[in-house]
Amino acid sequence: MELSQADRQHLDKSKQDTGSLGNTNDGLKYDSGRIAHDFSCIHSKDLLPAVGGEEATKHFLQELVNILLAYISKSLKRSSKVLDFHYPHQLKEGLEGFSLELPDQPDNLEQLLVDCRDTLKYGGTYECKIFSVNRFTYEISPVFILMEEVVLRKMHSIIGWPEEDGDGIFCPGGTMSNLYSVLLARFHLFPAVKTHGMSAIPRLALFTSAHSHYSIKKSASVLGIGSENVIVVRCDKRGKMISSELDSSIEAAKSKGQVPFYVNATAGTTVYGAFDPLNEIADISHSVTWNPHKMMGVPLQCSTILVKRKGLLQECNQLCAEYLFQPDKHYDVSYDTGDKTIQCGRHVDVFKLWLMWKAKGSEGFEAQINHCLENAEYLYYKLKRRTDFQLVFKGKPEHSNVCFWYLPKRLQNISPGPERDRELHMVAPQIKTKMMEEGFTMIGYQPLEDKVNFFRCVFSNPATQREDVDFLIDEIARLGCEL
Amino acid sequence: MELSQADRQHLDKSKQDTGSLGNTNDGLKYDSGRIAHDFSCIHSKDLLPAVGGEEATKHFLQELVNILLAYISKSLKRSSKVLDFHYPHQLKEGLEGFSLELPDQPDNLEQLLVDCRDTLKYGGTYECKIFSVNRFTYEISPVFILMEEVVLRKMHSIIGWPEEDGDGIFCPGGTMSNLYSVLLARFHLFPAVKTHGMSAIPRLALFTSAHSHYSIKKSASVLGIGSENVIVVRCDKRGKMISSELDSSIEAAKSKGQVPFYVNATAGTTVYGAFDPLNEIADISHSVTWNPHKMMGVPLQCSTILVKRKGLLQECNQLCAEYLFQPDKHYDVSYDTGDKTIQCGRHVDVFKLWLMWKAKGSEGFEAQINHCLENAEYLYYKLKRRTDFQLVFKGKPEHSNVCFWYLPKRLQNISPGPERDRELHMVAPQIKTKMMEEGFTMIGYQPLEDKVNFFRCVFSNPATQREDVDFLIDEIARLGCEL
Repeated sequence: MELSQADRQHLDKSKQDTGSLGNTNDGLKYDSGRIAHDFSCIHSKDLLPAVGGEEATKHFLQELVNILLAYISKSLKRSSKVLDFHYPHQLKEGLEGFSLELPDQPDNLEQLLVDCRDTLKYGGTYECKIFSVNRFTYEISPVFILMEEVVLRKMHSIIGWPEEDGDGIFCPGGTMSNLYSVLLARFHLFPAVKTHGMSAIPRLALFTSAHSHYSIKKSASVLGIGSENVIVVRCDKRGKMISSELDSSIEAAKSKGQVPFYVNATAGTTVYGAFDPLNEIADISHSVTWNPHKMMGVPLQCSTILVKRKGLLQECNQLCAEYLFQPDKHYDVSYDTGDKTIQCGRHVDVFKLWLMWKAKGSEGFEAQINHCLENAEYLYYKLKRRTDFQLVFKGKPEHSNVCFWYLPKRLQNISPGPERDRELHMVAPQIKTKMMEEGFTMIGYQPLEDKVNFFRCVFSNPATQREDVDFLIDEIARLGCEL
Repeated sequence: MELSQADRQHLDKSKQDTGSLGNTNDGLKYDSGRIAHDFSCIHSKDLLPAVGGEEATKHFLQELVNILLAYISKSLKRSSKVLDFHYPHQLKEGLEGFSLELPDQPDNLEQLLVDCRDTLKYGGTYECKIFSVNRFTYEISPVFILMEEVVLRKMHSIIGWPEEDGDGIFCPGGTMSNLYSVLLARFHLFPAVKTHGMSAIPRLALFTSAHSHYSIKKSASVLGIGSENVIVVRCDKRGKMISSELDSSIEAAKSKGQVPFYVNATAGTTVYGAFDPLNEIADISHSVTWNPHKMMGVPLQCSTILVKRKGLLQECNQLCAEYLFQPDKHYDVSYDTGDKTIQCGRHVDVFKLWLMWKAKGSEGFEAQINHCLENAEYLYYKLKRRTDFQLVFKGKPEHSNVCFWYLPKRLQNISPGPERDRELHMVAPQIKTKMMEEGFTMIGYQPLEDKVNFFRCVFSNPATQREDVDFLIDEIARLGCEL
């Protein structure tokens, strides 16, 4: 993203720090003479990987270091408070301009620095703020608990749930979110399982597509349901679950005495990027796993389980350990969210998502995802025109995945069949080994069902440009043509 | 920690950057004239919270920012490699001085900067290095996978397992580590459970002390065993599991047709800091949960499950998803550790532990834990001498937990009994509310069994000094004396 001429002038303009950034150096004398920068006219899109973004990125990171250092030094003073308690309604109403709400348009970098400072100021105990740690009760990490509430509510509204519905929690990875979803569905139908175990309830069956993520089977194993009770439903050529097959699988399970209790539908499968028929399945669903670490580009770990029925998470997971969750507190203890989770103390994964949302706005996320989809389409059309590449399935990609084989010269004139497949299966691994040795590109491959090893290019990096796509194709052809 | 005069002079001595820090600014021209600092004679203990540590901390953080920026800028160039592949044996042997091994003595800060740069250099793909992400295969995050191996092996040796034994994994929190331990024990005895579920195996029973962490019950609920099958074993007055009670509980479960398969022993219970009779229980154990986020002071999340039997983690959790784990690779795929875990992509929790170990050395950890234990003993002796405080159990603390009541004036002369207890139960919550409103101290309380609400002070912050302990006692007395 290029800076406008005006932005550049603004960025280059250095001025003395007149306190416009607030009390950056509360009581500290590190840098009394340092030159501060004006961040009010630049945005996160002007930082690296933006062309010419080095200087702005450097000064922004230095300012963050200053904020952290000032905070740490202040906290270490014995005269400092260990916490500055505010009741939930005070923080939600916004204290001195600190708003947790998520914007559609990006905030400027000065606002983000203010937000970081405010997060430290109102965040709770020292340890929680510096290390982004949630020790499960409101008193210890008030800002992060309210941040979770605000972000999860925004996600509920995007899903389309009524405002009075909806609950959720951040989980350590997408597989854990899916595990929560299975756990919740089981508890919803058979609450006795929590106390009495699987022996007290009927034999269960759950359903997922042949192309779905392996986390559903892992969950079934872990939860004591058993992986064989995950019924794998057939997909069409594009990798979408076939609804009629789901219906007949459910009937078949019932006739064997199993109780169907869970259907997993995927929006964007791992390999093909396929969308299962979500609308047909959604009517009976209670929960959504949404992984901001995927297309939204939030660094791992950042995954959520969103639950339609309020209270279900709490009922399912709470044990009310008195030494952690005391009911006799002076604030609304429903904000002590720790007992909703399987974990206890947690890493605060919400902060980076919240800050990115402030920095990009909803529109920024939309634009970056659209850019990835455009790259996928660009690659698709390029490959379609070439005789040395072959697409794995027909039709434009619906998501950012493009799946294809590369055909070395000697295989281009052999007609498709078991003989060619045997050779073709070895091509992708050989090209990838060469790629890794040279180190300029890296792309994954895998077989799937009757398809031998094929490359899978998934666009999720918003910095990727068309010339990178061109380079990738040329590299594969260069490394593979003589194989 | 005070700097010596010589250290101070060294620290103050500024010199031009002559490249002694290596290629900090590979090809970049940000700061060609900047003044670099010599970090070779100072150590992490000289940084904040050390007295006078502000300047050194600031320059150290700035150097880290420079290293990150240089790396990011270089990575964004199209001419840069996306990875610089090295085989596992190359990285383990040490490349150009980069050693993953953990020292007994602390490394100096210059070495730590070099280590950070080397981690970036050999770390794998861009995303993994910047965001500390482990995308489960060696090719994508080689350094972090080897780092895990080195750190886990060190932990095995401290536990005392023979070098040829031992396996393990970092988990998102201690509860998850405990869940893994129950999962592994169940699979070890009844591997059929993975595929067939709980209905294919006998009714299980597991054992844990009355004072143990609630994660054992949570695990039993999640895993489909049922929380009622967690048999709670009675403790002595110091909160230690009574061995004879464990024996009779096991016999009682057997006589009811349950199969005992798991005993949890705790080293340092949550409230009392009690140690269960580990040696008596250890003979039948297969795994250890070790949480570096506790006494070692590593920021959350940082928890490990260490398993004596090699291969058990992999057998228990692998599903061999072909799209993730291809057997036809050009290196030893046993380094693709992702299939050992319930999760898939993971946050790299090992890096901060590894870097802290380099920075402190084993001796640094030992000293900081001893310091916490000394603080606990100091508090114990102070409280013992006072009439307005009462200790919850007799005898010196064995760990860093000190549990006590504060007795306001009006309760000091009432003899112990239900009437006094009814009043005493309300004292800790009232004092804590006042603490939170004023914000200068914060301490937890809880009831336990027949004991009404008492304060629990757990020392884990190495920066805490005796004067902080004095201040805490004075504050409690000041806020509580008139209650």
